[in-house]
Amino acid sequence: MSSDLNFGEFSVSIFGESHGAGIGAVINGLPSGVELDMDRILDFMARRAPKKDGMSTRRSEKDTPEILSGLYNGRTTGTPLAAIIRNTDTRSQDYRNISTAARPGHADYTGFMRYDGANDPRGGGHFSGRLTAPLVFAGAVCAQVLERLGIESCAHILAIDGVYDDSFSELDVPHELMESIKSREMPLINESRAEEMRAHVLKASEELDSVGGIIECAVTGLPAGIGSPMFDGLENRISQAVFGIPAVKAIAFGKGFDFARMRGSAANDQMYMDGDTVKTSTNNNGGIYGGISSGMPIIFTVAVKPTPSIAKPQKTVDFIRNKDTELEIKGRHDACIVPRAVPAVEAAANIAVLSFIV
Amino acid sequence: MSSDLNFGEFSVSIFGESHGAGIGAVINGLPSGVELDMDRILDFMARRAPKKDGMSTRRSEKDTPEILSGLYNGRTTGTPLAAIIRNTDTRSQDYRNISTAARPGHADYTGFMRYDGANDPRGGGHFSGRLTAPLVFAGAVCAQVLERLGIESCAHILAIDGVYDDSFSELDVPHELMESIKSREMPLINESRAEEMRAHVLKASEELDSVGGIIECAVTGLPAGIGSPMFDGLENRISQAVFGIPAVKAIAFGKGFDFARMRGSAANDQMYMDGDTVKTSTNNNGGIYGGISSGMPIIFTVAVKPTPSIAKPQKTVDFIRNKDTELEIKGRHDACIVPRAVPAVEAAANIAVLSFIV
Amino acid sequence: MSSDLNFGEFSVSIFGESHGAGIGAVINGLPSGVELDMDRILDFMARRAPKKDGMSTRRSEKDTPEILSGLYNGRTTGTPLAAIIRNTDTRSQDYRNISTAARPGHADYTGFMRYDGANDPRGGGHFSGRLTAPLVFAGAVCAQVLERLGIESCAHILAIDGVYDDSFSELDVPHELMESIKSREMPLINESRAEEMRAHVLKASEELDSVGGIIECAVTGLPAGIGSPMFDGLENRISQAVFGIPAVKAIAFGKGFDFARMRGSAANDQMYMDGDTVKTSTNNNGGIYGGISSGMPIIFTVAVKPTPSIAKPQKTVDFIRNKDTELEIKGRHDACIVPRAVPAVEAAANIAVLSFIV
Amino acid sequence: MSSDLNFGEFSVSIFGESHGAGIGAVINGLPSGVELDMDRILDFMARRAPKKDGMSTRRSEKDTPEILSGLYNGRTTGTPLAAIIRNTDTRSQDYRNISTAARPGHADYTGFMRYDGANDPRGGGHFSGRLTAPLVFAGAVCAQVLERLGIESCAHILAIDGVYDDSFSELDVPHELMESIKSREMPLINESRAEEMRAHVLKASEELDSVGGIIECAVTGLPAGIGSPMFDGLENRISQAVFGIPAVKAIAFGKGFDFARMRGSAANDQMYMDGDTVKTSTNNNGGIYGGISSGMPIIFTVAVKPTPSIAKPQKTVDFIRNKDTELEIKGRHDACIVPRAVPAVEAAANIAVLSFIV
Repeated sequence: MSSDLNFGEFSVSIFGESHGAGIGAVINGLPSGVELDMDRILDFMARRAPKKDGMSTRRSEKDTPEILSGLYNGRTTGTPLAAIIRNTDTRSQDYRNISTAARPGHADYTGFMRYDGANDPRGGGHFSGRLTAPLVFAGAVCAQVLERLGIESCAHILAIDGVYDDSFSELDVPHELMESIKSREMPLINESRAEEMRAHVLKASEELDSVGGIIECAVTGLPAGIGSPMFDGLENRISQAVFGIPAVKAIAFGKGFDFARMRGSAANDQMYMDGDTVKTSTNNNGGIYGGISSGMPIIFTVAVKPTPSIAKPQKTVDFIRNKDTELEIKGRHDACIVPRAVPAVEAAANIAVLSFIV
Repeated sequence: MSSDLNFGEFSVSIFGESHGAGIGAVINGLPSGVELDMDRILDFMARRAPKKDGMSTRRSEKDTPEILSGLYNGRTTGTPLAAIIRNTDTRSQDYRNISTAARPGHADYTGFMRYDGANDPRGGGHFSGRLTAPLVFAGAVCAQVLERLGIESCAHILAIDGVYDDSFSELDVPHELMESIKSREMPLINESRAEEMRAHVLKASEELDSVGGIIECAVTGLPAGIGSPMFDGLENRISQAVFGIPAVKAIAFGKGFDFARMRGSAANDQMYMDGDTVKTSTNNNGGIYGGISSGMPIIFTVAVKPTPSIAKPQKTVDFIRNKDTELEIKGRHDACIVPRAVPAVEAAANIAVLSFIV
Repeated sequence: MSSDLNFGEFSVSIFGESHGAGIGAVINGLPSGVELDMDRILDFMARRAPKKDGMSTRRSEKDTPEILSGLYNGRTTGTPLAAIIRNTDTRSQDYRNISTAARPGHADYTGFMRYDGANDPRGGGHFSGRLTAPLVFAGAVCAQVLERLGIESCAHILAIDGVYDDSFSELDVPHELMESIKSREMPLINESRAEEMRAHVLKASEELDSVGGIIECAVTGLPAGIGSPMFDGLENRISQAVFGIPAVKAIAFGKGFDFARMRGSAANDQMYMDGDTVKTSTNNNGGIYGGISSGMPIIFTVAVKPTPSIAKPQKTVDFIRNKDTELEIKGRHDACIVPRAVPAVEAAANIAVLSFIV
Repeated sequence: MSSDLNFGEFSVSIFGESHGAGIGAVINGLPSGVELDMDRILDFMARRAPKKDGMSTRRSEKDTPEILSGLYNGRTTGTPLAAIIRNTDTRSQDYRNISTAARPGHADYTGFMRYDGANDPRGGGHFSGRLTAPLVFAGAVCAQVLERLGIESCAHILAIDGVYDDSFSELDVPHELMESIKSREMPLINESRAEEMRAHVLKASEELDSVGGIIECAVTGLPAGIGSPMFDGLENRISQAVFGIPAVKAIAFGKGFDFARMRGSAANDQMYMDGDTVKTSTNNNGGIYGGISSGMPIIFTVAVKPTPSIAKPQKTVDFIRNKDTELEIKGRHDACIVPRAVPAVEAAANIAVLSFIV
């Protein structure tokens, strides 16, 4: 179904529209008896909130989820965990002038065609990036379940507009590094790159434009043998989840597209025994062979396109009146959504990985 | 489930192991009354067969599927269509020496861990590239259903070992071009690149090595409004299907990772009316916004890693005896599987696209 | 997943616990652009509310659903429709004394075992009959979609404690009759039976006991050819939905168990042409052959066991202390839940039937 | 999907038509490493084969399944287990005269409408009782997995045409009894009832008619806590599976429709400690509360309608020519399919129960 991650006994269903009454998530199949730390869930969600550094929209979102079910005495009940987030600060007049002119790069036109014009167009409706809030909530819940199993994940900005952060080591992504990245204003391995990234974003913003980037995500602690061959393995489920994040247009595991220039002798990860544990001396495959984990870190990258909402005038169509028109998007919009997409990618990974274990 | 593409009312279930009795596919949810042309199905499958040009294994595969159900008087019944392909030429002695030494880059070790050592290890078992034969069969069936709806797809080799073919025009992929590509020995837009590609493959082969590449796929004729937001859209389903092909490690829609260096003003596809039809003057998004088709060609690329089976000695582990070992893979193996993966990618696209329409 | 009706592209997911913050439903796959009449939804839900006639609990439930998403300008958007119902009047002290003694006939013990004691035990938690409120909401939404397609459904009390109402005519269930039944205090075809039924319920109540019954449901207007063979037909989906209602223990289509004493010559529904329409002169099969509708009314009955919550002392176990104990259930409980289960059965039918059409 | 039992990670997909090339099943999600005893699978399947006692068709079915995948060295691989059964003795001329006259009680007309006339009509095509052969195969495989977990099931004829066998004790169904029933020519608890049942069947057969009956099934050894609330519990899954058997029209758990006349004080199963184990002194609920097992035997009954294929002349319609007609069904048909449906019901139970445990 359209807005469900339906993974066997485990599922996450997302609902809501940007300017409707509320958005939310229902998680089915969580193990029972897991104590959830709400503060840490809110911390996770805060990483998605708009920053005060000019990189993100100034719209203040108080996205505190209210858990309606599935939690009793602070522990998961095992029955569906539902949470809602109210939409409050939704000055819909900001969006008034874009209701019939399709915003290029957005789903305005395709959504209109899909739903015969009945979908909620305000702020993108169900297609809005705001829907990543319940996704991030669900991923934050999953993170706490995974932690009990010794599994941890972390995403960071690998690049913005051609300015690169360092990459994770494919062989070892330490817990401390993950914690540091999550605590930073900009989720980077090498904080010194933040300034240049910000400069690029601000320049684009001043030029009424926007920039894209790349996010890298690692999952550690997953033992060997988790996943499935063919259509329901780690790569399949992670992809299905990650493409649920608006603006994600590509995903690559391990060396990804760089494999296209490699020889097999270099691409194959040579194996060795490290005590009783099988390890690989490289990890070009991002910890996945045949859809199944090898015990090495899971590593993947995703491409995030530049925010389609830009203030520059754009040529488009009025899809009600079927005529050409020009559009200047007013309102408050991020010139770069990459930082805010980082916890969403991490959340998607958490959900996909947990689905194999519950 | 592990080996099912389970898309709402429509599904394709693949079964079999490389050296077992047989492999096959069950397709549920096909429309009834569609006349199937078996010759064209066999033509499609022949594009996957090993080539005689030294690029592929010389193992002769007579992969003629036998349709057991779902076809009556040459037309689909609407009830499950099942087909099997016998495994015949399976000299399992070729594989004898690799049964306990994990082949690097393969799923030998991860499959062993996943199934507690009970999976069929011969030739990769269920993880074998041979399982793409029923996938291609299913995609060939879907192609004939799609054709009645005016929808067509075509994949080609975009690159092998750094040697590039031309790309599809993102705005128009003519039927004649698709037909030409499919009829060629090497599925290329610009046939003049075949020689250089072959040279790279042969050189790698002589050096007991292998090479990878990139496949590009286009789907035309899909009207605007097909797909779904969030987790069950075109990108999600195509990805889920494509990652079912062994050796695929990345997928990118439209500009994919190149978006990371683009400005929004360039990335956004400006829109205009072409008579009564909404079109975009660029198609950076590969015909998909919010998981839904725009009416422009669907375009995506996938990365194929170098064939892991190489004759060069490799360091690995004996996962039964838990010790380091060295491995030289004998037997017949493709030095480059990119050409044979082309129809598999096209098949995956056909299945994913049809799933939204039936 | 446990609390989802997952029917291809269409699904209804129910969440909540009796004494938690709230309960609700998410409906995926509704057609877009359907105007919903909230008053009629509330009317439908009111049929589930406790009656003032002593047959049902006096707990006042103000189960007004709040629609959070999926509705815009009064019409369905096509994206997920989510609604929540707050739990307000939840005097949990009433339930205090039953927290460790399993209530016989309830899921207290099985739920405890299923969730390792972490499920919410208050008022039955997720197993509570209260969860039929969001089910009825979803069924009321579906009813309005079905109505546009000329499809209508109606359930009534067929029997309470051995006192029988008339049955629907298997050949024709007129719209006017359906409307009348829905408007009645007791959903009966023959209102004159209400008094005797009430007498049985009151007698049981006075004796600190409870009674069960049978509900019959009809769906009309479904054209021939809707459904599927084997595991995903009308009978399969209706059953899956109906067994989601607590206390339902059996379902029978058409003649059901009476078929066991019939001859084929009597059981087979002879067919004839009524103008251009194929009809059957009997409808023993309840309008379903091979999981597919015949165009005749769909008719099925379900058995509802007596309310397990009775005031009489009962022998049971304390499943925390692992010892025998005795239990007297205090609190407010229906002596007969059959009348309140009627709209739930109808809702389940609506959901199952609509799932084949969207 | 129409012909799949899709239970989370576990699924059984059935394909085939009565007179096509073959029928079969694909089982996904079996545990790996389970040794399968083919002789016992064949024994199980033989219980479905036509009897030599005149009760069943004389058509000789050599329904030996060929396992194509999922089994290696006699043990399950964990990857999809596929098996096919060839259709051999398919004298289609027997069926020639019924191709355009709908057989009353069959799915001829509804299948025609569902598939726009493209479905295979020979012998009922995909709707044929013959499709229970792969279902029984799958159930026989599941039985061997369940046995390792101490879980056992057995179905028997509870009634044919009003002649009743004894019922299982709801409190204890011993292994020895199960074994005896399975070894008998007629699957009965009280063999002395066989003669009278046979007499009823033969009389009906002589009168060119047929009879129906009731099958009772028990599952023992299932620990408490298996299942799920609401829509995906034991009752839901067993029902979904059992209604996949042609001619099944009703299912009842525990006391089923008899609950309608019971008082709560009698219906509630009083609980007590038997050493460390929670037991109930009655088992009216058939071992299931809230969709979850109690540890007591699972007990349910299903109604099987009389074989619709009878030799008596019947009034029907020619659905090609849209006119009334009369039909005399020639060919070989069982006058009572209840005995042959017994292993199918047991198989359905095995599949449903195993789906919760894998």
